[in-house]
Amino acid sequence: MAIEQKLQKFQCIKRSTRGTINIDPLQRGGILTDEAREALIEWGDGYSICDFCPGVLDMIKTPPIFDFIHKALPEFLGTDHARVTNGARESKFAIIHSMAKEGDWIVLDQSAHYTSFVAAQRTRLNIKAVPNSGSPDYRTTPEGYLDAIQEIIKETGKPPALALVTYPDGNYGNLPDVKKIAAVCHEHDVPLILNGAYSVGRMPVNAKYLGADFIVGSGHKSMASSGPIGVLGVSEEYSSKVFEKSPTHKVKEIEMLGCTARGATIMTMLASFPKVFERTKHWDSEVENARWFSSQLESLGLVQMGDKPHNHDLMFFEAPILFEISQTAKDGRYFLYKELKARKIHGIKAGLTKFFKLSTFGVPRDDLKVVVDAFDEIINS
Amino acid sequence: MAIEQKLQKFQCIKRSTRGTINIDPLQRGGILTDEAREALIEWGDGYSICDFCPGVLDMIKTPPIFDFIHKALPEFLGTDHARVTNGARESKFAIIHSMAKEGDWIVLDQSAHYTSFVAAQRTRLNIKAVPNSGSPDYRTTPEGYLDAIQEIIKETGKPPALALVTYPDGNYGNLPDVKKIAAVCHEHDVPLILNGAYSVGRMPVNAKYLGADFIVGSGHKSMASSGPIGVLGVSEEYSSKVFEKSPTHKVKEIEMLGCTARGATIMTMLASFPKVFERTKHWDSEVENARWFSSQLESLGLVQMGDKPHNHDLMFFEAPILFEISQTAKDGRYFLYKELKARKIHGIKAGLTKFFKLSTFGVPRDDLKVVVDAFDEIINS
Repeated sequence: MAIEQKLQKFQCIKRSTRGTINIDPLQRGGILTDEAREALIEWGDGYSICDFCPGVLDMIKTPPIFDFIHKALPEFLGTDHARVTNGARESKFAIIHSMAKEGDWIVLDQSAHYTSFVAAQRTRLNIKAVPNSGSPDYRTTPEGYLDAIQEIIKETGKPPALALVTYPDGNYGNLPDVKKIAAVCHEHDVPLILNGAYSVGRMPVNAKYLGADFIVGSGHKSMASSGPIGVLGVSEEYSSKVFEKSPTHKVKEIEMLGCTARGATIMTMLASFPKVFERTKHWDSEVENARWFSSQLESLGLVQMGDKPHNHDLMFFEAPILFEISQTAKDGRYFLYKELKARKIHGIKAGLTKFFKLSTFGVPRDDLKVVVDAFDEIINS
Repeated sequence: MAIEQKLQKFQCIKRSTRGTINIDPLQRGGILTDEAREALIEWGDGYSICDFCPGVLDMIKTPPIFDFIHKALPEFLGTDHARVTNGARESKFAIIHSMAKEGDWIVLDQSAHYTSFVAAQRTRLNIKAVPNSGSPDYRTTPEGYLDAIQEIIKETGKPPALALVTYPDGNYGNLPDVKKIAAVCHEHDVPLILNGAYSVGRMPVNAKYLGADFIVGSGHKSMASSGPIGVLGVSEEYSSKVFEKSPTHKVKEIEMLGCTARGATIMTMLASFPKVFERTKHWDSEVENARWFSSQLESLGLVQMGDKPHNHDLMFFEAPILFEISQTAKDGRYFLYKELKARKIHGIKAGLTKFFKLSTFGVPRDDLKVVVDAFDEIINS
């Protein structure tokens, strides 16, 4: 086959999950607004936002990136300073890499996203994980942070360089008591990073109120943005360290490698921002939907793990009854995926039956009912 | 003003330079193909490409990201292994950060992009810049690399950890003799990074043929992709180092922080790739256009710096005659920008007259004639 023919497969690829009810936790908060879709087309060309660049991304006045990064975003995050990055993981790495050095220690929750571990590993840190309470609550506690910090002090003679807490974690959707965790950290002079990849843009979250020194969020996960894009908030105290400038190229920030989200991604974040700002005010109805959904699935014999009553759209279910069915089902462990697919429901990982996670964020109640009915049919027919 | 009203300015922002003849070197190679525009809309939602993720971006089979990254891309770059990253600068940092450690030395060309310096600074390396030959050629030579490497050996007792060469540089569009530079580097056991941000996707370039151990390219600069996105090619010899996996999360590559271009950006790269592949075969006509354009501007009294005859669409002109006019023009040093803007030509930085850079890449000959005529009028009327 000629190479030209072989390459054709990269063109005109359709997304096969279009039109389904999507309950993938990764994807619910990143569905674009109409305004973001418009921005994608208007600003899609490479480096389009640099038409009137004064030397660095966050200083661009036309389009109003400066106003977004230096005014709207810090207020939204509750921080003194903010930047846009290529994602929450890149925000975390920028903080960790600038604040700590090889061989230092970091404390993070066992429930942390894998990228928190990897960002610390990329900086060649030692990691101490704060265990969660295990089944069924999987709770992360301030006492756990206290123990971890004290152990490190005992072993090394000094506190860890950083701590990180995930709010909520990406498995159970648990919201730990960040205020108390921050108090524990600060008593020991440990700066605290808040990973808000599943909160910033979904629910009200304010770094200062919670006592975090840093906050990171994800545009494609929770801010209705086309990725990869994230946000980074830093307190005044640490901003000169995280945003240190190049000795040779005076306006360029080293950890940002100069500029980060230098494309349409940032324009989708701006375009969605008014609606994202607005939706965080209606978080109570999201929690209500999540709790209703959880109670419905529990009435079918599934068990929701984590905080109860639940406080977030991201939920983890154990489903012994589905596992049992899978043992004799034609498609084995893939039966649940196929049954849901046949009902145009997407987002639970293929092959899982015993336990799985999902999200109800922004799913209309009618669609949630379709999902509940689907489980009912799958279990009871 | 209510906050909701204030935020409205982030919505529905139009790009004011639409419909102009764009000669911005940063933007010429990143203009999307129709196929990429379609991909943007189809795959715009956050994490859309993760519908069927097997655990890591480059292994996704649906859409065919695996085939692109592990088959088409290494062949295109002339490397054993390839990845997609968040941009050329992020590719460079991943190489430098994995291959070198704090205090090591790197040799790079004085003409290198600022991000090459900043990527080395982020890794806390010592930098030795190979001087170029200065005006009017600004040439980077293999002898310069030899001198720099030998100086470092003399000073530190060992060769630098890495060398980097920019092909072409972003100011003069010069194409240094990479084969000879690679030979010099390898004689001293120094691995060589080729920064192809302005070549990969525009012209034929093959890392193995040129002798480079690493190659980086930019999707939004030269591969008709919506940014930020880049490519990274690595030889077999260094791949285990650059793509080292997390000890705790076995499929995740540390330098990639797990996954990189986890959004529509990678789908625009795939969608444009067949046409990008094709256009590199017609590079001779691009060079012809550039040379024609250069000769036209020179006949008006401007002087093209760098390689002559020129071998790339990116060109740097000195324009003493425009500087002279600016001295008495109503808009002073902004007169050239305004005169060009009035003729719907965009891409030369506002405020520049004495010298400036531009690109003719993919600009139809008729549009180039409009630009030449504009300069003629501005100078001679």
